[in-house]
Amino acid sequence: MTDRSTFPDPVYRDTVLAPLFEGVKANFAEHMDAVDRAHLVMLAETGILTAEDAGRMAGALHAIAEEMDPEELTYTGEHEDWFFLVEAELRARLGELGGALHTARSRNDIDHTIFKMALRSRVAAFEGLLHDLAATMLAKARAERDTLIVAYTHGQPAQPSTYGHYLSAALEVLLRDARRVSEAADLLELCPMGAAAITTSGFPIDRARVAELLGFERPLLNSYGCIASVDYVTGLYSAMKLVFVHLGRVVQDMAFWSAFEVGQLRLPNALVQVSSIMPQKRNPVPIEHMRHLASVAAGRCDAIVDAMRNTPFTDMNDSEGEVQQAGHAAFEGGGRMLRLMSSVLDGARIDGEKVQRNADAACVTITELADTLVRQEGLTFRAAHEIAAATARDVIARGVPLGAGFEAFRVAFEERAGRAPTLDDAAFAETVAPETLVARRDRPGGPAPTALDAAFETYAAELDALRASTTARTDRHAAADTARTAAFDALRG
Amino acid sequence: MTDRSTFPDPVYRDTVLAPLFEGVKANFAEHMDAVDRAHLVMLAETGILTAEDAGRMAGALHAIAEEMDPEELTYTGEHEDWFFLVEAELRARLGELGGALHTARSRNDIDHTIFKMALRSRVAAFEGLLHDLAATMLAKARAERDTLIVAYTHGQPAQPSTYGHYLSAALEVLLRDARRVSEAADLLELCPMGAAAITTSGFPIDRARVAELLGFERPLLNSYGCIASVDYVTGLYSAMKLVFVHLGRVVQDMAFWSAFEVGQLRLPNALVQVSSIMPQKRNPVPIEHMRHLASVAAGRCDAIVDAMRNTPFTDMNDSEGEVQQAGHAAFEGGGRMLRLMSSVLDGARIDGEKVQRNADAACVTITELADTLVRQEGLTFRAAHEIAAATARDVIARGVPLGAGFEAFRVAFEERAGRAPTLDDAAFAETVAPETLVARRDRPGGPAPTALDAAFETYAAELDALRASTTARTDRHAAADTARTAAFDALRG
Amino acid sequence: MTDRSTFPDPVYRDTVLAPLFEGVKANFAEHMDAVDRAHLVMLAETGILTAEDAGRMAGALHAIAEEMDPEELTYTGEHEDWFFLVEAELRARLGELGGALHTARSRNDIDHTIFKMALRSRVAAFEGLLHDLAATMLAKARAERDTLIVAYTHGQPAQPSTYGHYLSAALEVLLRDARRVSEAADLLELCPMGAAAITTSGFPIDRARVAELLGFERPLLNSYGCIASVDYVTGLYSAMKLVFVHLGRVVQDMAFWSAFEVGQLRLPNALVQVSSIMPQKRNPVPIEHMRHLASVAAGRCDAIVDAMRNTPFTDMNDSEGEVQQAGHAAFEGGGRMLRLMSSVLDGARIDGEKVQRNADAACVTITELADTLVRQEGLTFRAAHEIAAATARDVIARGVPLGAGFEAFRVAFEERAGRAPTLDDAAFAETVAPETLVARRDRPGGPAPTALDAAFETYAAELDALRASTTARTDRHAAADTARTAAFDALRG
Amino acid sequence: MTDRSTFPDPVYRDTVLAPLFEGVKANFAEHMDAVDRAHLVMLAETGILTAEDAGRMAGALHAIAEEMDPEELTYTGEHEDWFFLVEAELRARLGELGGALHTARSRNDIDHTIFKMALRSRVAAFEGLLHDLAATMLAKARAERDTLIVAYTHGQPAQPSTYGHYLSAALEVLLRDARRVSEAADLLELCPMGAAAITTSGFPIDRARVAELLGFERPLLNSYGCIASVDYVTGLYSAMKLVFVHLGRVVQDMAFWSAFEVGQLRLPNALVQVSSIMPQKRNPVPIEHMRHLASVAAGRCDAIVDAMRNTPFTDMNDSEGEVQQAGHAAFEGGGRMLRLMSSVLDGARIDGEKVQRNADAACVTITELADTLVRQEGLTFRAAHEIAAATARDVIARGVPLGAGFEAFRVAFEERAGRAPTLDDAAFAETVAPETLVARRDRPGGPAPTALDAAFETYAAELDALRASTTARTDRHAAADTARTAAFDALRG
Repeated sequence: MTDRSTFPDPVYRDTVLAPLFEGVKANFAEHMDAVDRAHLVMLAETGILTAEDAGRMAGALHAIAEEMDPEELTYTGEHEDWFFLVEAELRARLGELGGALHTARSRNDIDHTIFKMALRSRVAAFEGLLHDLAATMLAKARAERDTLIVAYTHGQPAQPSTYGHYLSAALEVLLRDARRVSEAADLLELCPMGAAAITTSGFPIDRARVAELLGFERPLLNSYGCIASVDYVTGLYSAMKLVFVHLGRVVQDMAFWSAFEVGQLRLPNALVQVSSIMPQKRNPVPIEHMRHLASVAAGRCDAIVDAMRNTPFTDMNDSEGEVQQAGHAAFEGGGRMLRLMSSVLDGARIDGEKVQRNADAACVTITELADTLVRQEGLTFRAAHEIAAATARDVIARGVPLGAGFEAFRVAFEERAGRAPTLDDAAFAETVAPETLVARRDRPGGPAPTALDAAFETYAAELDALRASTTARTDRHAAADTARTAAFDALRG
Repeated sequence: MTDRSTFPDPVYRDTVLAPLFEGVKANFAEHMDAVDRAHLVMLAETGILTAEDAGRMAGALHAIAEEMDPEELTYTGEHEDWFFLVEAELRARLGELGGALHTARSRNDIDHTIFKMALRSRVAAFEGLLHDLAATMLAKARAERDTLIVAYTHGQPAQPSTYGHYLSAALEVLLRDARRVSEAADLLELCPMGAAAITTSGFPIDRARVAELLGFERPLLNSYGCIASVDYVTGLYSAMKLVFVHLGRVVQDMAFWSAFEVGQLRLPNALVQVSSIMPQKRNPVPIEHMRHLASVAAGRCDAIVDAMRNTPFTDMNDSEGEVQQAGHAAFEGGGRMLRLMSSVLDGARIDGEKVQRNADAACVTITELADTLVRQEGLTFRAAHEIAAATARDVIARGVPLGAGFEAFRVAFEERAGRAPTLDDAAFAETVAPETLVARRDRPGGPAPTALDAAFETYAAELDALRASTTARTDRHAAADTARTAAFDALRG
Repeated sequence: MTDRSTFPDPVYRDTVLAPLFEGVKANFAEHMDAVDRAHLVMLAETGILTAEDAGRMAGALHAIAEEMDPEELTYTGEHEDWFFLVEAELRARLGELGGALHTARSRNDIDHTIFKMALRSRVAAFEGLLHDLAATMLAKARAERDTLIVAYTHGQPAQPSTYGHYLSAALEVLLRDARRVSEAADLLELCPMGAAAITTSGFPIDRARVAELLGFERPLLNSYGCIASVDYVTGLYSAMKLVFVHLGRVVQDMAFWSAFEVGQLRLPNALVQVSSIMPQKRNPVPIEHMRHLASVAAGRCDAIVDAMRNTPFTDMNDSEGEVQQAGHAAFEGGGRMLRLMSSVLDGARIDGEKVQRNADAACVTITELADTLVRQEGLTFRAAHEIAAATARDVIARGVPLGAGFEAFRVAFEERAGRAPTLDDAAFAETVAPETLVARRDRPGGPAPTALDAAFETYAAELDALRASTTARTDRHAAADTARTAAFDALRG
Repeated sequence: MTDRSTFPDPVYRDTVLAPLFEGVKANFAEHMDAVDRAHLVMLAETGILTAEDAGRMAGALHAIAEEMDPEELTYTGEHEDWFFLVEAELRARLGELGGALHTARSRNDIDHTIFKMALRSRVAAFEGLLHDLAATMLAKARAERDTLIVAYTHGQPAQPSTYGHYLSAALEVLLRDARRVSEAADLLELCPMGAAAITTSGFPIDRARVAELLGFERPLLNSYGCIASVDYVTGLYSAMKLVFVHLGRVVQDMAFWSAFEVGQLRLPNALVQVSSIMPQKRNPVPIEHMRHLASVAAGRCDAIVDAMRNTPFTDMNDSEGEVQQAGHAAFEGGGRMLRLMSSVLDGARIDGEKVQRNADAACVTITELADTLVRQEGLTFRAAHEIAAATARDVIARGVPLGAGFEAFRVAFEERAGRAPTLDDAAFAETVAPETLVARRDRPGGPAPTALDAAFETYAAELDALRASTTARTDRHAAADTARTAAFDALRG
């Protein structure tokens, strides 16, 4: 049973090792270099390496970075992976000292550290797009505070509201989604370095210092967890998925609102694909594209989370290179969706004529008439509803707006109440005007201007807080880059 | 095209309305009654209803609650749903006044309010189980702080650690999972009441008061969002899914550790299904049951989240009764999984003999020998590794533990270093003892006792904080029940 | 390290064993009894048991079935599970002989056999509902062969077609879905019995005979596969999921078509939830209920498939009792969805007035005008399109149907072609009538009556074939029940 | 409300149109060209275009293909998409005639036709890999027909079997999976061309001829279904997912079997990542890579299926370019997994010593001893089991293999049976030898050589049938390419 085969098997090389190598080049090499430098600085500071050895090592790392162009490298199988290629370069330059950089660390803790760093920048960009979308929604909501729309329940016209009110509802969800993403991102700020293979090291390492030099908030505590936990991945993609599931619902509304027969929302020509022969045909195709971009992004998030199912709780490749990169695709396509949605929201406008037409046809203010009769005429609910219903039946039969139903109203009122209404024709018309219904909904969370203005303030504050949170992280990352460079340069003298 | 059909279609009744009615009986009726009472108290306090009318209404509600036994009701189709059945009862007792309870509210805001209330109690119980499991893990980790295990990477023995260290890693994840659930649960504490159908009401309602009387923290702001947002559902089930995905990984370790050939973990007889004919066969079947209970619970969570995909952002049944109840199944099966895992962790123990056997066979401390040669003998890494590897090859060839390899070590050392090692036989044996490796891993997050003791304190504090958060919520709910009852009783005089 | 604990641990009993026992009572006990009887008949026929022993055994089984009422049993933990309870009953009656029934079999092969039997009946019922729905669609398509609708692309009106044509498209998908389910169900017809624990038996068993006595088509071959393969589960639920995903798309069309502003589809009063105050408000809520019933059913299918991820390829509980029952829920809710959809399709009708209104407003026949100019007037495509577009612009500006656009057409034609069109006013009106466009689409698969009539025949044939396939299976099952009973009764004399 | 914006919005261009254009270049342009040519041939054959016009059109298409290098094109926004770019080229060369190629067709039917063509080639390659893997399994199963392994249930050693038997079980599943993929692929062979936008065309097109010229089996019937149905996508990815879910289970067994302590499976050095310092440490990392490659591929399949949820049943982008390409990633990563698994199966071998060691330690043949006592000594089951159990207890206590337990067996037998066994020492040893148990399992599906040889024949036949089915498809595609080229060349004279 002699085994004369030698690593790597060519199929393994082609199906796994070479793709992984390409992945490192594209996504992780720069972070691995940062880890090398931070770790070296710490080894020198703690005296694990002498100043002289550390200086030579820094020189070699610097030279390699100067001389080696990742873009030009292809995987040959000579070195198992990128890590060993760099180590071989170090050994070629430094002899046995070359191996000393790997003191008190392991590919295990390095890997999860660089995966987090690669995610950090993607999350920051993603959060930026989320916040931009939120800002667009808020600006639009403010601008459209008083723009009437028909609000639907169960797919049918139900009540008038305003576009600003609707957008505020979507914005509240988006802000909570962004908060969830932000909280998930916090876990990316805990540094696995120092866990080494599993149990930390027998050398007197300083985990906090490495974390600091790499811009992390602090070390992730349990060293076994550092190399085995995947909730920085699953938590993040779970939170991202919800963004797309929730925005996908707004997209469905946009599709419905912009349907030819509904027409409440109108996309600008810049976002409509037309037909040369059907001048009236305007396909708001970007809405469909938002839907599938969101769906596929959600599915990519699921793919990553579900790849962890029934894996062991140990260091394993199921949370590493190949899977990490599969996850990155969710940022790419999902990010395009967010950009597109900002642009669509920015360009789309409410078609007031269509709103009026639909509102009239659907008698969407009829409940306000009944409520008014209760409040103002002192009727019981049943009486008020009967009068309102009779009025609605009349205008529908005649195909006129509710505002033209005063006479029917008056007759029904007198029949039921035994007296004339105090509401005259003008007051009736005002009562059943959509503007009136909206103006009277001034409870917290309602569409009346005062209620909305108050709400806008809370959204703006939450958005500021979210932006500040992202900025605090990216500022720390940038400051660490500077500090690390300085410490490293000092080392190599 | 005359339509002489009457509601409800018998198939619709049997496939939808009757199951929904049964669902209300089992899950929501009590909460609907609480909403009725809180809303009534608010209507009276704000003067929307007169004291007298409110008093009569309270009396009727009280009588209905006394006289109507939900268990005995079956759906007939006479009333569309539970809500209309109660309203009919009110009208039967109060005449036209019966309809006034529905002033300034709608089935829309009621529905999401009672769904949240039904989830609140389930989440509190679920969090209780999570915290109990965390407490079990922490207690076990403390008790097994010094119990050696073999830690694995890529499915192979890698290094010694301690059971307390491993459990701490799992506990850190669990605490983060519990935190995620707790944050998701916060959204259940925002009350939709007062949104009415969509836009709040023209009546001078007090949303904050209703929220308070029902034990919520405060109203959910935007009224459209109150009846259209589903992230209280999706956020919750997403967070719950992660609990099961992550615990499922620990379960896979338990399955491996308790495999006959590995034997590191031993389940007590109480948790083992045996064979009458194979006295050595011990099937740790509860581990498998944990796995599928976790998997199915995770799948049930997914089912709810994915049911929201590409639905409109409006009031809709896709987030209501039937789907809510499908989600409850995740609590049921998932809760059983958590209980079982606490019991299994409590009963299982590490088999020290097997750990020793596997550790010896796999030379799991060999890296510590090399590190020691670097630190203590001043060798380069390459020299240290070569000597250690030669020692390992010798003991493996002879089938003896690493501790018996001093002579081979000495020879290899002299060959490479050109001198005798300062390590003598006893020092060598100590160096390669698993206990030594563990003791030297005292960096933050490592398995050494001091490091673990410090970590336990942080876990205990976080667990306390989580428990406090749950208790604060359940206390508020209970206090509101009391306050609501008092206010309601005062009303009916 | 003495272990004095005894099976079962109380938590294990409550969280796993008792629920499993209840599950057997509800779902599997009758099938286990059938397996006992078939196996016994085979043991006797092959001489593995003597006729006398087999006769006594048959008598005891018969007596147990007569005397033991599953409904009255509750799990006590005295016997590990239902299987052992029955064996204990046999031993109590027969002494040592009681154990002989288990010769050459195991709980492993029994389990997957009874799981398949429990699925068989559910699948047959599910297929019945699928075929009923297909029959409803076909009948409706035939009845509505000539009923005009507006067909949409990208959510916008595009061309006229017929309801019969649309339903045929949905029916083609449904028939393919039903075919997929049928093929998945074929795997339920291969019998695991005789695999025993893993490797068949050293006794001269007759696997084909047991399979026949239980109504299976034949044994499943590889015995390891018999107890380890789960594709009879995953294949089935995958196929079922697609039914719901695809029907869910038709449901979305129904939601859109029945929107107030579109109005193309009208649900009967029996399926509409109305508002007492808004007489025009008709909520077609059953459509929403179909959507979420389909979604949750799809999610339940996923939950089962995904529970198999990263499990070992061996006998395991992950494909057994608890998970099997979780899967059954997909049949329950999904079956309700199919019943409801049949009822909704049966009751809903096309509103011809709305179709006409929308078709007119959207100029949906404009492309036929251009095509006609190419075919009949010999124009180039560009010229034809320009003339048609000019005509469309005119009628849209005037707010009249395309049929009223002859004069604009004539002028545009003369301008572009330099001559009068041969089409006169009547021919023009006929050309742009929706009926004309439909009648001219008589290619295979088109909406013209001849094309549809031909298509209906192929659908009817495929539906017959599907029904025949299901019937062949259920007939075989029933025949086996009869044969097994006869053989068993002969045995006990 | 003037709209002066012009198509395309720059964000829409960058986020959607440009990526789509790149996608067409990479995946669909060649198929679009084939469609153009086939359609043109049909237009000429049916006389819809004159021979002269068709000839000029063919010349222009040919010239464009010669002169336009897709690789050099980048999206500018001047033309909406690739289709319009080609049409503009035609018009530039042919004037108004350029538009005539689009007679009686639409981007709708073209799109689904080219999506199917792009999937066809991917599926054929994927099926090739599936069949290669099946062939590897079959060859290995034949070669290892008599190689003993320990078979596990519930993660514990249960019975001896052979590697050939185990691989046959996996192969049976794989062949069923391949069959499912093949059946899903059949739907790719139905051609949408001729559906035009929705309803076929008023021109006398020949759908069957276009289908034939493009290598399809026949047209897909209903024209609405041609542009709205997505089950050619969902059915395919559902079937593919199951391949990965099922192979993932075999992978988990490989991980367990190759664990250090189990050691039943040994990967060759070419597939093992080693440690320079731990010579005994052999990480069979390719197994992990198979697991996550399978998981991510499964997740990508899900993403596509789930993107269709709650979309309308119409022509829509959710099943088009971007989503199609996201699906292609499942072929890429999944294909690598299949290649790797073939290589791993090819290289891995059973370690007979470890099998013997584990089999001995676990007494895996003890049930055969009891069965033999029933058959050969005429004992009751209970007596036989008691004697076997006593024997097992003895050898376990002494730490020797079961074969060394004759004396304990003899004593237990005499005690229970009151006489000496007829089995002597040699017969006893033979009885408890794993080889004996296997040899006696010769029922259909068992591991005995005769049973396996018979099974191999059925697998080989099924594999041949699967390969033939794929070849028949690819042969038809190739023949159509030839025929289309000939017809097209004839056209351009």
